[in-house]
Amino acid sequence: MTKARREALRAQLAGDWAYFTDYESIFYLSNFSGSNAVLVIGDKEESDLLITDARYQERVKSIENEIKVIIAHDFKAILKEQIPTSVQLRIDGKRVSAYQASELVSALPDREIISSVDLLLNLRIKKDEAEIAQLKKACEITSQSLWYLINDLRPGMTEKQIAKKFWQNALDRGADALAFDTIVASGENSASPHHEPMGRVLQKGDLVTIDCGVSFNGYQSDMTRTVFIGKTEAWQVEIYQSVMQAQAEAIAKVQIGISAQDVDATAREVITNAGFGDYFVHGTGHGVGIEVHEAPFITSGNQTELNENFCFTVEPGIYLPGRGGVRIEDTCILTKGGLEILTKGSHEIICVG
Amino acid sequence: MTKARREALRAQLAGDWAYFTDYESIFYLSNFSGSNAVLVIGDKEESDLLITDARYQERVKSIENEIKVIIAHDFKAILKEQIPTSVQLRIDGKRVSAYQASELVSALPDREIISSVDLLLNLRIKKDEAEIAQLKKACEITSQSLWYLINDLRPGMTEKQIAKKFWQNALDRGADALAFDTIVASGENSASPHHEPMGRVLQKGDLVTIDCGVSFNGYQSDMTRTVFIGKTEAWQVEIYQSVMQAQAEAIAKVQIGISAQDVDATAREVITNAGFGDYFVHGTGHGVGIEVHEAPFITSGNQTELNENFCFTVEPGIYLPGRGGVRIEDTCILTKGGLEILTKGSHEIICVG
Repeated sequence: MTKARREALRAQLAGDWAYFTDYESIFYLSNFSGSNAVLVIGDKEESDLLITDARYQERVKSIENEIKVIIAHDFKAILKEQIPTSVQLRIDGKRVSAYQASELVSALPDREIISSVDLLLNLRIKKDEAEIAQLKKACEITSQSLWYLINDLRPGMTEKQIAKKFWQNALDRGADALAFDTIVASGENSASPHHEPMGRVLQKGDLVTIDCGVSFNGYQSDMTRTVFIGKTEAWQVEIYQSVMQAQAEAIAKVQIGISAQDVDATAREVITNAGFGDYFVHGTGHGVGIEVHEAPFITSGNQTELNENFCFTVEPGIYLPGRGGVRIEDTCILTKGGLEILTKGSHEIICVG
Repeated sequence: MTKARREALRAQLAGDWAYFTDYESIFYLSNFSGSNAVLVIGDKEESDLLITDARYQERVKSIENEIKVIIAHDFKAILKEQIPTSVQLRIDGKRVSAYQASELVSALPDREIISSVDLLLNLRIKKDEAEIAQLKKACEITSQSLWYLINDLRPGMTEKQIAKKFWQNALDRGADALAFDTIVASGENSASPHHEPMGRVLQKGDLVTIDCGVSFNGYQSDMTRTVFIGKTEAWQVEIYQSVMQAQAEAIAKVQIGISAQDVDATAREVITNAGFGDYFVHGTGHGVGIEVHEAPFITSGNQTELNENFCFTVEPGIYLPGRGGVRIEDTCILTKGGLEILTKGSHEIICVG
């Protein structure tokens, strides 16, 4: 499956070579997941090369029939030997440190090293079949784990306990890891989009926002719901309904060819018209894949055209400082028929406990 | 507590300013843990500045009494306004991408930007009291979780099930997260130092290596034991005893002022004398702190002098391809009295199931 990705990159490189050191690029192009490796993509298949150290000599066995692997201590010596002089070598400036770039330049004096950015962006933004299967499973585990948790919420629980329960549920359902530290923000803490769960105790009348995701076979997921505890107050219902409507309209608006900024504008308009525009303090969404935040970013000013098999979140929110907030987020995939929500479940007001 | 760290850095900078964008440096210097921030350390306390975005406006409240915080969308505009021209601004070339470095140079045309490496190395390598408390707790959770798991090992369990059980135990005992994906390598898989747990079923006669760690309040831990399942074979006992002796001698050798390479050589000599030198394919240890792999690296050629309150692992191993391997690892802290093991528990042969 990764061969097609390497070939697509090779076509794009048009004779140049490329050099990767970051986990995500190497995993995408080879399925190798060690912590210390270099991947070289050459101008033909036989030039492709993964270099890693002896700790991984067993793990590379599963990829050795697809790509040449060299186990080495001194990566630079191998690079010097394997990359012909006169090659134009592309590195991804966002994924190689300033130090690594300068080391590479001095290690390979007769190659032209060109720092590009986002070398894999055009490839990774469009998920292939194998990726979609993992994303669907990650989203399924996430939504099942979250809904199971929501039914359990009661006054008296702490934010930290709730975060641990999500962890527990995700583990029971087959997650490999959490995609990120679960956010649980209750009462006035829910006014903080990225609140860290603490000892605060849930009270009747709270809004509780839970933002969670898991990792499955190298792919992530991301989902948020805000739940009412014990009772609903008019101001809470008002912001909830604005967010719900903003999300629904943004999702309905998405089709192949629309720009990211138009989706953002759709959600933002609903919230602005409701009088809460100043309190929607983040973008409408972000791509999800090997990373939990990747392209496409659904933000104002981003003219990227959304296309088939792009996977991204739609997550408007309203945050009233000192009072509380609401966010509703789903991870979705763009299909010919429109936007399909992968993190299943209701968007309506839910009041528990 | 972070004020002392900023002052120590300021003394080291001797009038220069410093600019950080990476999670670890910012967390170390300010306790801020968001995903999108810039920290500037100036030539005096009042110049210090954290910039982040509106998602974190609640979270920064806990640090605002220690350090100036600006919430902004356009970080560059703030940097231009807050960093005087003529300042020499240091960036950490290993922690800033090539792209970020070039963007910074064009954003701040009248400041001299100097790429150093390991700006915080001398500070972070020596843990302060607050850090040691978190490290001890992370190590306590890890060793308790691992020992509980070891007693449960039985033929018929899969590597993946064992990894999940560690996750479960760590969660029950108060870990915030796993420090890294747990390694469970059984039978001939144990010949792979960084094997990924799969569906392989434990059998009588297996060696099983479990390498695990948790994260607690931002600090990591790292521990490994190899366990015998059901019976012991002579070759397994032989490599186990070599590794056990190598670890014990290396730990006993450590005192304030010894070099990292001498500790590595001590472990390596035992294993080489036993005839397995070619099968000890990694360094003897690495530092543990905010990152699970950080300085000091206990490797051949590293002349770093080990000093009080350095925290690092001692983890020799022997890996016989196609047969199996043994690793014994503890996270330790160097005190005036010698090396104190933080991941408690026996090093002797354990046979279960």
